[in-house]
Amino acid sequence: MRSLCSFVQTAGQLRTTFARKNTVITLRAFTASAHCNKYQAPKFQGQKQQDAIMATTTLKGQPFDRQTMDSMLRRRMFYTPSFEIYGGVAGLYDYGPPGCALLTNIMDIWRKHFVLEEDMLEVDCPALTPEQVLKTSGHVEKFADWMCKDPKNGDIIRADHFVEEILESRLKGDKEARGVKVVEKEDDPKKKKKKVKGAVEAVKLDDAVVKEYEEILAKIDNYNGEELGALIKKYEMKNPATGVEPSPPVAFNLMFQTAIGPSGNLQGYLRPETAQGQFLNFAKLLDFNQQQMPFASASVGKSYRNEISPRAGLLRVREFLMAEIEHYVDPDGGKKHSRFEEVKDVELVLLNRETQLAGKTHVSKVSIGKAVADGTVDNETLGYFLARIHLFLEKLGVDQSKIRFRQHMANEMAHYAADCWDAELQTSYGWIECVGCADRSAYDLTVHAKKTGAPLMVRERLDTPITIEEWQIDLDKKKFGPFFKKDGKNVEAAIEALPQEKREALAQDLAADGKITIDVDGVGNGKVEISKDLIIIERRTRTENTREFTPNVIEPSFGIGRILYSLIEHNYWTRGGSEGGDEARGVLSFPPPVAPTKVLLVPLSGHESFKPLLKHMSLKLRSLGVSSRVDDSSASIGKRYSRNDELGTPLGITVDFQSVKDKTYTLRDRDSTKQVRADEDTILKAIKALVEGEKKWADVEKELPAFEGQEAELPVREEK
Amino acid sequence: MRSLCSFVQTAGQLRTTFARKNTVITLRAFTASAHCNKYQAPKFQGQKQQDAIMATTTLKGQPFDRQTMDSMLRRRMFYTPSFEIYGGVAGLYDYGPPGCALLTNIMDIWRKHFVLEEDMLEVDCPALTPEQVLKTSGHVEKFADWMCKDPKNGDIIRADHFVEEILESRLKGDKEARGVKVVEKEDDPKKKKKKVKGAVEAVKLDDAVVKEYEEILAKIDNYNGEELGALIKKYEMKNPATGVEPSPPVAFNLMFQTAIGPSGNLQGYLRPETAQGQFLNFAKLLDFNQQQMPFASASVGKSYRNEISPRAGLLRVREFLMAEIEHYVDPDGGKKHSRFEEVKDVELVLLNRETQLAGKTHVSKVSIGKAVADGTVDNETLGYFLARIHLFLEKLGVDQSKIRFRQHMANEMAHYAADCWDAELQTSYGWIECVGCADRSAYDLTVHAKKTGAPLMVRERLDTPITIEEWQIDLDKKKFGPFFKKDGKNVEAAIEALPQEKREALAQDLAADGKITIDVDGVGNGKVEISKDLIIIERRTRTENTREFTPNVIEPSFGIGRILYSLIEHNYWTRGGSEGGDEARGVLSFPPPVAPTKVLLVPLSGHESFKPLLKHMSLKLRSLGVSSRVDDSSASIGKRYSRNDELGTPLGITVDFQSVKDKTYTLRDRDSTKQVRADEDTILKAIKALVEGEKKWADVEKELPAFEGQEAELPVREEK
Repeated sequence: MRSLCSFVQTAGQLRTTFARKNTVITLRAFTASAHCNKYQAPKFQGQKQQDAIMATTTLKGQPFDRQTMDSMLRRRMFYTPSFEIYGGVAGLYDYGPPGCALLTNIMDIWRKHFVLEEDMLEVDCPALTPEQVLKTSGHVEKFADWMCKDPKNGDIIRADHFVEEILESRLKGDKEARGVKVVEKEDDPKKKKKKVKGAVEAVKLDDAVVKEYEEILAKIDNYNGEELGALIKKYEMKNPATGVEPSPPVAFNLMFQTAIGPSGNLQGYLRPETAQGQFLNFAKLLDFNQQQMPFASASVGKSYRNEISPRAGLLRVREFLMAEIEHYVDPDGGKKHSRFEEVKDVELVLLNRETQLAGKTHVSKVSIGKAVADGTVDNETLGYFLARIHLFLEKLGVDQSKIRFRQHMANEMAHYAADCWDAELQTSYGWIECVGCADRSAYDLTVHAKKTGAPLMVRERLDTPITIEEWQIDLDKKKFGPFFKKDGKNVEAAIEALPQEKREALAQDLAADGKITIDVDGVGNGKVEISKDLIIIERRTRTENTREFTPNVIEPSFGIGRILYSLIEHNYWTRGGSEGGDEARGVLSFPPPVAPTKVLLVPLSGHESFKPLLKHMSLKLRSLGVSSRVDDSSASIGKRYSRNDELGTPLGITVDFQSVKDKTYTLRDRDSTKQVRADEDTILKAIKALVEGEKKWADVEKELPAFEGQEAELPVREEK
Repeated sequence: MRSLCSFVQTAGQLRTTFARKNTVITLRAFTASAHCNKYQAPKFQGQKQQDAIMATTTLKGQPFDRQTMDSMLRRRMFYTPSFEIYGGVAGLYDYGPPGCALLTNIMDIWRKHFVLEEDMLEVDCPALTPEQVLKTSGHVEKFADWMCKDPKNGDIIRADHFVEEILESRLKGDKEARGVKVVEKEDDPKKKKKKVKGAVEAVKLDDAVVKEYEEILAKIDNYNGEELGALIKKYEMKNPATGVEPSPPVAFNLMFQTAIGPSGNLQGYLRPETAQGQFLNFAKLLDFNQQQMPFASASVGKSYRNEISPRAGLLRVREFLMAEIEHYVDPDGGKKHSRFEEVKDVELVLLNRETQLAGKTHVSKVSIGKAVADGTVDNETLGYFLARIHLFLEKLGVDQSKIRFRQHMANEMAHYAADCWDAELQTSYGWIECVGCADRSAYDLTVHAKKTGAPLMVRERLDTPITIEEWQIDLDKKKFGPFFKKDGKNVEAAIEALPQEKREALAQDLAADGKITIDVDGVGNGKVEISKDLIIIERRTRTENTREFTPNVIEPSFGIGRILYSLIEHNYWTRGGSEGGDEARGVLSFPPPVAPTKVLLVPLSGHESFKPLLKHMSLKLRSLGVSSRVDDSSASIGKRYSRNDELGTPLGITVDFQSVKDKTYTLRDRDSTKQVRADEDTILKAIKALVEGEKKWADVEKELPAFEGQEAELPVREEK
């Protein structure tokens, strides 16, 4: 719908830009000028290559073919480009029926795992957000990417992607010129077509230049606009589509802007994250929680980012579902967590800063208890959530060998963050940041409180009162009022507002000169003199029974679309010709609780006698809370099962003539295609146990008699 | 945050502007010029007054006090104005924890009742929508309200509301002048303050003027901008805030606008309804459904309307949750529904057009079977959904005496709609349109197909092929090609495109003149002569094995926020001083499946021995899928139960010293405050049956021994 630069996305680029995790985008802008050039390890090159190899196998270790999987997902309507009949809009996708069911199931598990498990306080806030809020949070000024324009054809180009693509293409050309075989991996036919324009030329580079390029690529996330512009100039990078050098990079704010109300005067944005709505409600939530700390709020909803050139399917989109938790914790006392004991033995792959700097990407698992004890993870609360995130991903059915937690580098973090770890999932696009878990310190509550005057803090009754030594001021009210007359209130307010350092200096002035001079706006010339008969300034001790503090926030932030996509890749594999048909057919081995539909009901044929049984079983399953779908199309049973393997339906019930006679049914397992046969109640009981995760297919197979009948044949075996 | 006109919303205004129901807004704009002045019954005046009286009672028949209820809802954080610490934005609300749980439960019941029950195909589409789509649907041009500006203070005023308020105020003044007592009902303190400016003046009007005013008010929804402007001029209406006449009304489009992508060239809007995303996917969905008709798609998501001056809390907001169903049905064969039998005895209050025109507002219930049979409701499919909507609202716990279905007047409907009924719920704001159910005919699919060329239609294999008689054209290809040479293709295409009427005329020409002349763009002078040796035009019969048609759409469209608010009002009542405390205390008697939390767990005191039992029961309930919450605060048991009555928690378990001894617990019923006592398993079983709706409290009370102990006392009775 508009002309966009055609550079192909590579694995490494995705890693660094997600959600609040978009602190990453945020912070890239937030911190680029301050931190750039500090982080120079050229490790990601090696890492990328290794990742690419690893990611190319399916659940069953087969070579992974993304094009085949994508076409299956489109055919089965997991998701599809939005507004496609109007030509589509980049970065917008519709979820179809199985995609919606998958989303619903993921969110249901998420709510149970996090919100219900810990009595989190869920809030639902609008995406429409007035400018003021996002000014305070820093998004209006700094939530931006660097963007160039091609002066010839008007192409809009994301500067860091541009530099990365050009240099990678040159390095590839160098390798070809040196006779090193470069394996081209292409997924999307569209990309392939575009790629032609910027085809790799086999040009050998000097060794020194290769080194320079590799170093630039290693720290590509750390350049600001000016520096990216300088690189483009220095290395004479041209847009392959036009042969022209793009214009200098300018900051492009990623928030969608709109006007609220009919006057057009109230500037608003679509929120880039759900977090701010939660922070603004902090005082009400604390109240709702009867002033008890710690507690967490949670929010599920759409967020919006006007990406410059979104690619990589569901992994970088302009409207996406986020689920965010803000856990409020007392900053004093080491941020302990009362349930840390329960998770301390959970083992994680933790790629900390030091490991990354050492160029390593694979480390052994370590228990979170140990990681917190040795300081790898900053505190118990952060560690608790890392473990809980891991358990959540495990529950969804993410491949255990494809999860890691990567700590943000110092210059990659938002300036206010104390520590930040991303749960990354490995896919054919590389390691994808799917969950961010940041310790945001007291930043957000502090800035909003400062801006609005709202008390976004906790008042805690102290068991043992504390004594505070401080400079106190007494005024002789009897003389003070008559002396200052109408200015009295202003002068008094100015005195009250004096900070401790200033009071100390004034006490010395008073002792030395018998008077002090203070600034009071709007009284006389702004300077007011007060003599010692009106005022006393003394150092005294005071007892405090309450303590006020602004909580720190630990924020696990989930990109649901990214999790959903990775989950699909992790559970995808193909079945060869052995089980009917010649082509390899796709299977999605979702765990039953996640699967869009749990049970497929297939009649052997369109025979009338099957219909009441189908209806009966369908109602039975519904009353058990198990979603099912009938496929009574005229396709062969094998074809109908294949279709549902592609949809990830874990179980199938065949209704045949035997069923009509004796109410027995066969139950089929998606993954093994094995079948058992038993009476209705036994089958239903087995299904319920499988769907609720209480049993595995292996258990069911042991307990119930196997069924070996051909799928399209009339079963003749007697089961009883 | 901006200056808005201060007129108070009255009941009648809300009725007519909701969701797709916003076809109402839509259609008011769509149809106003064509239809205005046709609908003149001055009935709504009487209706409004009667409604206002009826709505002022609670579930228990007490006088309804909205201010008290609102303050309770805010205190318990059901919902709260968004961005309140920044001063708030009109028409935007946050849902707090109980509000979120209520929303989740309503949506869960909705999904089971509609989507799962009928295997509807759920889709999830973005709110961001490119302009083209909404141009085709008619929203860009016509989704607007009429807006005036006060030239003195810049106030922005919604024209129809302005006229209505001014005239109502004058009629009130007239009544006062005539000595008729007018009861002022004020709910919101803010409104009260503002109202002062436009205070009612007791001025007697001529009888003829009163009649004119009443007639204008009766058809207030039907005026277009020019007519509203003329009324303002004619009756010299001034903005009470300034004493100045507002500027002539201009159309204000209610969609939020934004630019998609970095170039700013792709104009977009936030969708005003979820329907369009579903229509655009029609071909894919039909495919997914294996070409089987009828079927339905469904969508749940936020929609956006930039209301000129939103008021009335959750009832008119700028961002709101919608749930929409698009049921696609063959327009031929009377739109039968295969499951109509199942609902035909459901009885509804149906306020059809004739009844409304006769000025009646209360009619007896009638079975939907009868209503479809006698033509009150147009067809079975529409009737089926009206009954299903009714059953859904009943399931949620809506007051049965406060539901009615009101048919749209002919001039109130969108021009493409065949019929439209609103499910209205009675509240203190009057009758509120909560669900719209329209027969949208083939309008949307037709316009999108026409615009994009996408085949948004059904191809149906005919069991009995049909024969079609038509004018067919044969060309003598051997001569034709050489004769026209390079123009051959163009001429042939022009011939193929000839419509039937034209062919008939040409056949006559050919017979008469031995040649025909047709228009062919780009060939010679645009006219081409063809002689009879090249062409034959004959009337012949042809056999068709398939039939193509564009389905009609029956659309039930749910405004979830409005349903939620009405549900709260319907279930609200107060408990007097009898049960502890002096003030009347609020209770929300939600049915257990809807209630935000199902069970409150209260320990008698903070005694250590209670803690393991609380944890144990809490885990037990969770494993049953029953949400619970522990309140171990230091407040008295009575206070803690009161708090949870306000939250609508239906059941309470008290853990006391007896529980520690013998593992028996008391179970309390929110509505009666009665308690029973039994062992753990019995209590859990009772809870599960109550929460799943299998039992009522009366059943449980009969089966289990009553517990009469004082709430704060140590129970001494032996149960076993």
